[in-house]
Amino acid sequence: MLTFNQYFDKNSDLRHLANPNQKALDSVFDLISLERKNKKSGYYELPFEQKALQESHAYVKEKQFFLDSVKNIVIIGIGGSSLGLKAIDGLLSHLPARKKIQLAFLEHTDPIEIQKSLYNIHIKDSLFIIISKSGTTIETSSLMKYVIHRYGLFESFEKKSHLLFITDEDSPLYLLGKKEQVSTVGISKNIGGRFSVLSAVGVLPLMLLGYDVERLLEGAAEFEKNFFERKEEHLLKKAIFLAKNRDRFPINILFSYSSVFKDFNSWYVQLWGESLGKFDIYGKKVGLTPISLIGSIDQHSFLQLIAQGLMDKTITFLSIHQAKYIEPKIPDISFEYLGCTDFVNGASFAKLLNVQQIATMETIQNEGIPTDHIELEELCETNVGKLIIYFELLTSCVGGIFNINSYDQPGVELGKIRLREIFKILSKA
Amino acid sequence: MLTFNQYFDKNSDLRHLANPNQKALDSVFDLISLERKNKKSGYYELPFEQKALQESHAYVKEKQFFLDSVKNIVIIGIGGSSLGLKAIDGLLSHLPARKKIQLAFLEHTDPIEIQKSLYNIHIKDSLFIIISKSGTTIETSSLMKYVIHRYGLFESFEKKSHLLFITDEDSPLYLLGKKEQVSTVGISKNIGGRFSVLSAVGVLPLMLLGYDVERLLEGAAEFEKNFFERKEEHLLKKAIFLAKNRDRFPINILFSYSSVFKDFNSWYVQLWGESLGKFDIYGKKVGLTPISLIGSIDQHSFLQLIAQGLMDKTITFLSIHQAKYIEPKIPDISFEYLGCTDFVNGASFAKLLNVQQIATMETIQNEGIPTDHIELEELCETNVGKLIIYFELLTSCVGGIFNINSYDQPGVELGKIRLREIFKILSKA
Repeated sequence: MLTFNQYFDKNSDLRHLANPNQKALDSVFDLISLERKNKKSGYYELPFEQKALQESHAYVKEKQFFLDSVKNIVIIGIGGSSLGLKAIDGLLSHLPARKKIQLAFLEHTDPIEIQKSLYNIHIKDSLFIIISKSGTTIETSSLMKYVIHRYGLFESFEKKSHLLFITDEDSPLYLLGKKEQVSTVGISKNIGGRFSVLSAVGVLPLMLLGYDVERLLEGAAEFEKNFFERKEEHLLKKAIFLAKNRDRFPINILFSYSSVFKDFNSWYVQLWGESLGKFDIYGKKVGLTPISLIGSIDQHSFLQLIAQGLMDKTITFLSIHQAKYIEPKIPDISFEYLGCTDFVNGASFAKLLNVQQIATMETIQNEGIPTDHIELEELCETNVGKLIIYFELLTSCVGGIFNINSYDQPGVELGKIRLREIFKILSKA
Repeated sequence: MLTFNQYFDKNSDLRHLANPNQKALDSVFDLISLERKNKKSGYYELPFEQKALQESHAYVKEKQFFLDSVKNIVIIGIGGSSLGLKAIDGLLSHLPARKKIQLAFLEHTDPIEIQKSLYNIHIKDSLFIIISKSGTTIETSSLMKYVIHRYGLFESFEKKSHLLFITDEDSPLYLLGKKEQVSTVGISKNIGGRFSVLSAVGVLPLMLLGYDVERLLEGAAEFEKNFFERKEEHLLKKAIFLAKNRDRFPINILFSYSSVFKDFNSWYVQLWGESLGKFDIYGKKVGLTPISLIGSIDQHSFLQLIAQGLMDKTITFLSIHQAKYIEPKIPDISFEYLGCTDFVNGASFAKLLNVQQIATMETIQNEGIPTDHIELEELCETNVGKLIIYFELLTSCVGGIFNINSYDQPGVELGKIRLREIFKILSKA
């Protein structure tokens, strides 16, 4: 279960925006329903589809014997092709079902990082998964060439079985996979990378790691169904509040209380930043800047700025209920000179973390800063599915109000063109 | 060597601010010189002091026999007590001098993280270093109690030798250390946590890890000396530009091209955010919001927002010159359908990363967004010392122009009081 609490009206002058009227709610809802109906993005369908599950099961069944020997999975993919998978594994890696497979990510072109990531990776017990919508992203294609060369992955049919492509149907990489008889799983073209984690991009690797991906999709499906049956109106309210206060609060912080959220927060940063930073249909630049914080640790780095710096931020707190995590405890020891720290003695660390989150939230609220709070009852596939689709739907709603296309990223293309130009100049020099 | 390039005047209407007149430069310089002279913060003296070096050498000499057996160092400390050390180890861990000691950080009260950090840590080959200005920070004191209890560190004189306290002279933790005969190294009270990495807080652990800390301090000293001899005027120019444009560009991004900068960026985020987010002397809330990005990876998550979202950001690029890192290379392989990716074939990954940084910077500049670029010739102690003091001096200059106290963090105290209150209420319930 997830609980949602919104405290947007601590500032009396924000009260009307914190409680939008029915017309406003209906208008955003209609917008999103239309998007979904028109299949502007395919992500809306993913929780209800059987495609990713079936194709993943088929792959696992075909390769069962080889997969039983796999000790390392190396993901070659960047941005939307890796962040979602990393986020979910980060949240759930403590589950007993998680196989003892090492998951490594080869994401970028940093020479030091490449060497470190592949240290101790040998072909015999490794599976290399190339994830890319096109296969032509320069980081991914370069790293793919590197691993294929380093491990001789194209040298024989046997070696090719250590490779798996997950890519858009009929993309260059898809065609290469088919031609070279590499296992290749296709995903629909109209699912953007950052909205793709509930497709085969996430589902297939997560299945290989031992997770119950059916429950992941069921959780997402349940939340989405409820949303479209108008049972999750808080989401519409939040979208309206954030979108309509974009000039006053251009920065949105996700302040997550547990280090397990670290990669989830990075996934959110990409989803929010890349979807919402756009020209709107009137040619105006809009955007909301996402920031990732982890509690309690970032209370000691960023809280001062939130509490007493510019009032340009909203804060979403994300936490796990303490009840399920009773160990370890703070020992009931008292040291001379440090008696003022004894008030937490005997409490579980989870309880301390929980109270820290509440204390920080209340302190920030008292400054008149808009906050909301999402609490997960526990970390399990179902709840993570809900959390994923919640943030995706929220992003779509805000993008809808902004009058932008939430699903493209034209600003990234300019840099790619310039990269090619500079290489051309250098090669002539 | 570090090179500094500033491109603040790509927007014609910012040109006058990008080139402040001599009076403005002198005024900021005088401000900072006075701060240093008045010892408003002790950090200015650290690169020139022998104290941290001498006390660290003394500790190493006394414990040489025990230290030779240490395979794990566990740092118990949060915020300024851990971020600087982690940053420097992240930047330099590839150096041959770095000993094969595992460095673990026990920073916060997350139950899952605690268990993970201490997995496989046994007392016999481990040193536990408690770093805290007071010893009463609740995360640090609770975790200290936990490790002392778990490993029985107070049970005998022998076991106490596995403990080391680094703390303010005469703080509660200092007094406890002296009373219990735990090795205790004191630091000056007027050095804030986030400015303390060149004190024993950083120097002693870094020495234990095998780094050449003399050169770290020398690098910092050289840069600081040059700055106060008016040979690094670009720093004053940048401070004026950022401070005077705070309303137009309230967000400052540090976009570092290599994953080795990850922890360095976190150090910068704390330094910048916590120092500059304040009430000024007129009672007005001011602040600049720092954001950490790593290239090329975050080109695929955040670049869209920079390029086409709100124009409220400045970007500092940080990179390493490619010349020293010629391996690995992108293999000269061509795949059918992927021919458009072959223009980088044969280049080193470092070169690709380098050109990606240039291409991204130029693309952003063309949008009229203010950028600057710091390039390190190579990753070594000297250059890292320079980089550290550069950002500290920059922070002081901006804080000086803001008319704030850059060295306190009153906003964090409110949450601590509320934490205590909630625990009191809960214990009565």
